[in-house]
Amino acid sequence: MTQKVRVGILGASGYGGSGLIERLERHPHVELAALASRQFEGQPLATCWPQFAGLFEHTFQDHESVVEACEVLFYATPHGATAPLVKLAIDAGKNVIDLSADFRLTQNEYETWYGQTHPHPELLPLARYGLTELHREELPGTQLVANPGCNASAASLALAPLAANGLLGENVIAHVATGVSGAGRAPSLPFHFTEVTENVKPYKVAGTHRHTAEIEATLGRAKASGKRLETHRRTAGPVVSFNPHLVPMTRGILATCYTRPEKNLLDSERLLGIYREYYRGDPLIIVQDELPQTKAVYGSDRTILSVRYDARSQIVVAFAALDNLGKGAAGQAVQNFNVVNDFEETLGLQLEGVWP
Amino acid sequence: MTQKVRVGILGASGYGGSGLIERLERHPHVELAALASRQFEGQPLATCWPQFAGLFEHTFQDHESVVEACEVLFYATPHGATAPLVKLAIDAGKNVIDLSADFRLTQNEYETWYGQTHPHPELLPLARYGLTELHREELPGTQLVANPGCNASAASLALAPLAANGLLGENVIAHVATGVSGAGRAPSLPFHFTEVTENVKPYKVAGTHRHTAEIEATLGRAKASGKRLETHRRTAGPVVSFNPHLVPMTRGILATCYTRPEKNLLDSERLLGIYREYYRGDPLIIVQDELPQTKAVYGSDRTILSVRYDARSQIVVAFAALDNLGKGAAGQAVQNFNVVNDFEETLGLQLEGVWP
Amino acid sequence: MTQKVRVGILGASGYGGSGLIERLERHPHVELAALASRQFEGQPLATCWPQFAGLFEHTFQDHESVVEACEVLFYATPHGATAPLVKLAIDAGKNVIDLSADFRLTQNEYETWYGQTHPHPELLPLARYGLTELHREELPGTQLVANPGCNASAASLALAPLAANGLLGENVIAHVATGVSGAGRAPSLPFHFTEVTENVKPYKVAGTHRHTAEIEATLGRAKASGKRLETHRRTAGPVVSFNPHLVPMTRGILATCYTRPEKNLLDSERLLGIYREYYRGDPLIIVQDELPQTKAVYGSDRTILSVRYDARSQIVVAFAALDNLGKGAAGQAVQNFNVVNDFEETLGLQLEGVWP
Amino acid sequence: MTQKVRVGILGASGYGGSGLIERLERHPHVELAALASRQFEGQPLATCWPQFAGLFEHTFQDHESVVEACEVLFYATPHGATAPLVKLAIDAGKNVIDLSADFRLTQNEYETWYGQTHPHPELLPLARYGLTELHREELPGTQLVANPGCNASAASLALAPLAANGLLGENVIAHVATGVSGAGRAPSLPFHFTEVTENVKPYKVAGTHRHTAEIEATLGRAKASGKRLETHRRTAGPVVSFNPHLVPMTRGILATCYTRPEKNLLDSERLLGIYREYYRGDPLIIVQDELPQTKAVYGSDRTILSVRYDARSQIVVAFAALDNLGKGAAGQAVQNFNVVNDFEETLGLQLEGVWP
Repeated sequence: MTQKVRVGILGASGYGGSGLIERLERHPHVELAALASRQFEGQPLATCWPQFAGLFEHTFQDHESVVEACEVLFYATPHGATAPLVKLAIDAGKNVIDLSADFRLTQNEYETWYGQTHPHPELLPLARYGLTELHREELPGTQLVANPGCNASAASLALAPLAANGLLGENVIAHVATGVSGAGRAPSLPFHFTEVTENVKPYKVAGTHRHTAEIEATLGRAKASGKRLETHRRTAGPVVSFNPHLVPMTRGILATCYTRPEKNLLDSERLLGIYREYYRGDPLIIVQDELPQTKAVYGSDRTILSVRYDARSQIVVAFAALDNLGKGAAGQAVQNFNVVNDFEETLGLQLEGVWP
Repeated sequence: MTQKVRVGILGASGYGGSGLIERLERHPHVELAALASRQFEGQPLATCWPQFAGLFEHTFQDHESVVEACEVLFYATPHGATAPLVKLAIDAGKNVIDLSADFRLTQNEYETWYGQTHPHPELLPLARYGLTELHREELPGTQLVANPGCNASAASLALAPLAANGLLGENVIAHVATGVSGAGRAPSLPFHFTEVTENVKPYKVAGTHRHTAEIEATLGRAKASGKRLETHRRTAGPVVSFNPHLVPMTRGILATCYTRPEKNLLDSERLLGIYREYYRGDPLIIVQDELPQTKAVYGSDRTILSVRYDARSQIVVAFAALDNLGKGAAGQAVQNFNVVNDFEETLGLQLEGVWP
Repeated sequence: MTQKVRVGILGASGYGGSGLIERLERHPHVELAALASRQFEGQPLATCWPQFAGLFEHTFQDHESVVEACEVLFYATPHGATAPLVKLAIDAGKNVIDLSADFRLTQNEYETWYGQTHPHPELLPLARYGLTELHREELPGTQLVANPGCNASAASLALAPLAANGLLGENVIAHVATGVSGAGRAPSLPFHFTEVTENVKPYKVAGTHRHTAEIEATLGRAKASGKRLETHRRTAGPVVSFNPHLVPMTRGILATCYTRPEKNLLDSERLLGIYREYYRGDPLIIVQDELPQTKAVYGSDRTILSVRYDARSQIVVAFAALDNLGKGAAGQAVQNFNVVNDFEETLGLQLEGVWP
Repeated sequence: MTQKVRVGILGASGYGGSGLIERLERHPHVELAALASRQFEGQPLATCWPQFAGLFEHTFQDHESVVEACEVLFYATPHGATAPLVKLAIDAGKNVIDLSADFRLTQNEYETWYGQTHPHPELLPLARYGLTELHREELPGTQLVANPGCNASAASLALAPLAANGLLGENVIAHVATGVSGAGRAPSLPFHFTEVTENVKPYKVAGTHRHTAEIEATLGRAKASGKRLETHRRTAGPVVSFNPHLVPMTRGILATCYTRPEKNLLDSERLLGIYREYYRGDPLIIVQDELPQTKAVYGSDRTILSVRYDARSQIVVAFAALDNLGKGAAGQAVQNFNVVNDFEETLGLQLEGVWP
């Protein structure tokens, strides 16, 4: 029997953290050894997370103690603040799965889109981009996984088969409807209950949202390399107009992506065949005829894809539904942990969604 | 003082009906004389509509009695079934505001998109299309107003200024997030509470939704004529890919429209100026810098518009937020009634939204 | 024609404030002259309230300017902080409608339940308690109206007819389900969207919530005096166990009240008759056979009551549904303003609810 | 290794059914052999349940085939219609876990509360009432388990420790807030999305809801026997006034129960001690200081309890939070299956809730 891996979570009082706790506590090869939270340091787990009361016993600790106690560290901490913490862990020889944005982009891309100097560019060469299905080949043994953004995961998975098959036009529109938990657990007016109900709100549209850079990088790579992508390769791809919209639900992302390929005379059946072929054997991807809906992946780590050809306008419409806290965050992080460590890819994950 | 107009509502037990009751009861020049509902015939108003208990006294009647008792009839009845009822009213010399789809399109368009023979094509020449702001000049004195679809209203208002200024590309994508009340009050599984919460669901996408025809007709006319449109004029316009998505809220539509005009070197400021100019003086349209959100028009008959230029992709993103039961249905119907009768355009309407 | 009263609102950036703006802007005898908000001072109205964009023009001012500019002041500011502000207005000879808790109780009650010294006990004799239906006789000409708490309004209206008719037992249980807007607009974790959905949460139960004191005072007075109550009279009444529960909706309170009267052999019909008699002629109260539901008063200033006798347990179950921002706050405040000034009681108010 | 038990589900297209599929598919000692649904007969699982697409392969069959193929049958079918189906299964020597109401009460109680003749009273002596924690001793080897109602489970678990310790008064009020999924998956107006949002609705209050009989029977038995209850024993207990309220959420029940025991001079601490003692060792029950909230058991099979003494009114307030589809239905059914078959009590169950 495999010896258990000692794992720790930083930022364990946020929604990324609770998703990690849930998955790692049921992982057969993991000992969830320590949790850090600045806000809850010294307090018991259930003070922060009532759904775990009486089940798991932990007391939140400081960052240093957690790093010291563990072999693998999951960071669910804010971008910018995370890189210096990761630096300490890497220097101590630990393995890192980073859910923040700090190691997803090149130094240039990071500084362009995040408007700040990268705190530790020297670590970037270590990082592998953890969009698991597309980077599975280069993940085993990686010391530093950069887990993708939730919106980027949805849009990239929806569009990669088109990119790989030369079916993207010059431009791509990625329209995303996103649940509120993607904004985290820190209270603020735009996410106050009474301001969110009965409200659909566009935000950071028309080329201003940072996930644009991730999607463009992935589509460029997929255009060049099909499915076996390499983090540090850059190839020109389509320009993406990424337009997120907040919708009144807690979890879930629906990406609806539009592009007009050079080729017309396509049809939905043929496109579905291309998607099925591209994701053949991927245990967390479903390609289906029916249009995806977010409820079908509520609480799940899977992604549902479908695609349509609008023959009147010659536009391809590609859909992805995922749970922003599942495949969009903690689920993919644990999936990457499994691939890095050569465990079965779905260990600890939640496959079926909670319905209704 | 004006003598009051005797008005009746057909289909008064649906959501279109309740919106009409609310607005017509407070209209200073209207006597709401009679209500018809097949389902509630013979029963008092409050059995159907608890929000009116103790305020308005009505008993639901049959169709014939209502037609007979009134000078103006609002039809909030299903498409296909409405045309024959309208025929009776028109033959009896009554004026009609029809909220169904039966008189919005040409006979050809209707038969193509609705897949059935038009029951009364001889009435089509009488009809004027009631997208008020764009057809205001031809509405006064009209006997038969065809009130637009809720999605069509949102997308058309968002895109008309671009059409009128030669700023639409060959294709237009109209992505719509829509609240559940648009589907009416008849219970069915896709609108059952437990199936809608935590769910974003695309439906009738990629060229299959009937509102496509209305939007294309309007954009063609606006391209040719600017703002003073004529119902029976057809001019080629862009092909519209209309893609509606159900979101977990009761009221509200957010249309996010994408097009790539020939011209680039645009900017958001200039586009906003074009929108402000186009809708100058329209009391129910707000053009604003801030991105629209549906909550700001909850319960209101106004429409909020904004627009952005995504310079990276050279795509224009145009937004409209309205209440599908307000400007999208009953509000616009009463607005049209006012214009037809030369009353002040906002009489009986609700301007400010309910927040929170 | 009556000259318009110059009115101002303090705390105009909270939900109480927006409700007041809406009602006072449409009040025929009011000029809404000035709005104060510490947070938004110097900014235009629509920055704070998007639903009013393009309709009403105001710039938020400081407290002093608003007091100076107006004859009547509505305070929608926090308890404790309000009394000193009211003091300034009263000293300047202004009339005040206070939505805070500062003048609802006797000095003793206030200090017991709010755990702090009353800042201005010398003003208490001026105050009249604005549960309009029960204090209507003593309100005309009042300089300082203490507007009741939202929960207290619901429970008191549900129970007063029983109190007035000797039908309360020794104890009363007031179980309240309350929407989130009652907690105000300041973001905090318990009211963060993602923490409220799919959640019913009891809070401040079992004798710890401050509204208990208001309900007990009202029921004692009603027991002694029937319906014409006097603010400063105290008579022993039942002990109230008030138990509020947060439910995932924006607006609305449903009070379900339980008591076991000495008398049994009651029946629901007789109880309904007592309620109808008690509230005869009150334009904002509906007594109905059907069980009340909060949606029927969404956006409305009315209260719906009903009552049942559970013969098996000999318990009376009394229900009240109201909108916590309507009759529970701004609606009742404007109703009181009307009674104080001898205007028609419903001027500026919203009677019918928004459904769906 | 244990040979797997062949298990079937009747009524597998309802919410009870999907909860059973989820739990039984992950149960290590179960082979989920067959599913029946009248509505979906002949169709694949994913047509009905999108959350299982690509995970579990089943085709819905007819009732007879499922009974024949399995050793143990779970019935998630409507009351009244279920007893005759159960009869066939029992006659064929199968074991049954029945989620309907058909075998929960004595013949007399059933006919009083359900207003119809019991279809198979001869089976009643076989039945054991599956409120697991209180009937655990008599369940092993049972052929027919009557799974309790969701509301009855919540109220009974909240009140049993008081009953067992002589701390119930003559009357008990069980006020329940319940999510919409308790009403099942068949669409009807009261559960239409647009009618449920922003709505708290009491229904079947004041002695008219059928779960009253279950709660009274359980409390009578607990008063007499403490915790080891026997299904067929009846002892007089308190009269229960059960008052359910529909709230706008999908899952969850919060029971708030009120009683005034003879004894006063109680305190919350002592009551919590009594509850902890009563449920010591029960893996699905949490007794906690903090007030329970339904979100903490979303998707979970656990129940959270707490209790307060309101010293002012001498009323005990007891709380239970559970997921009506978890402990209130499928979770408790599988728990009972485990106890009947001497498996570990929590096999296949979901312990931690989904948050947020």
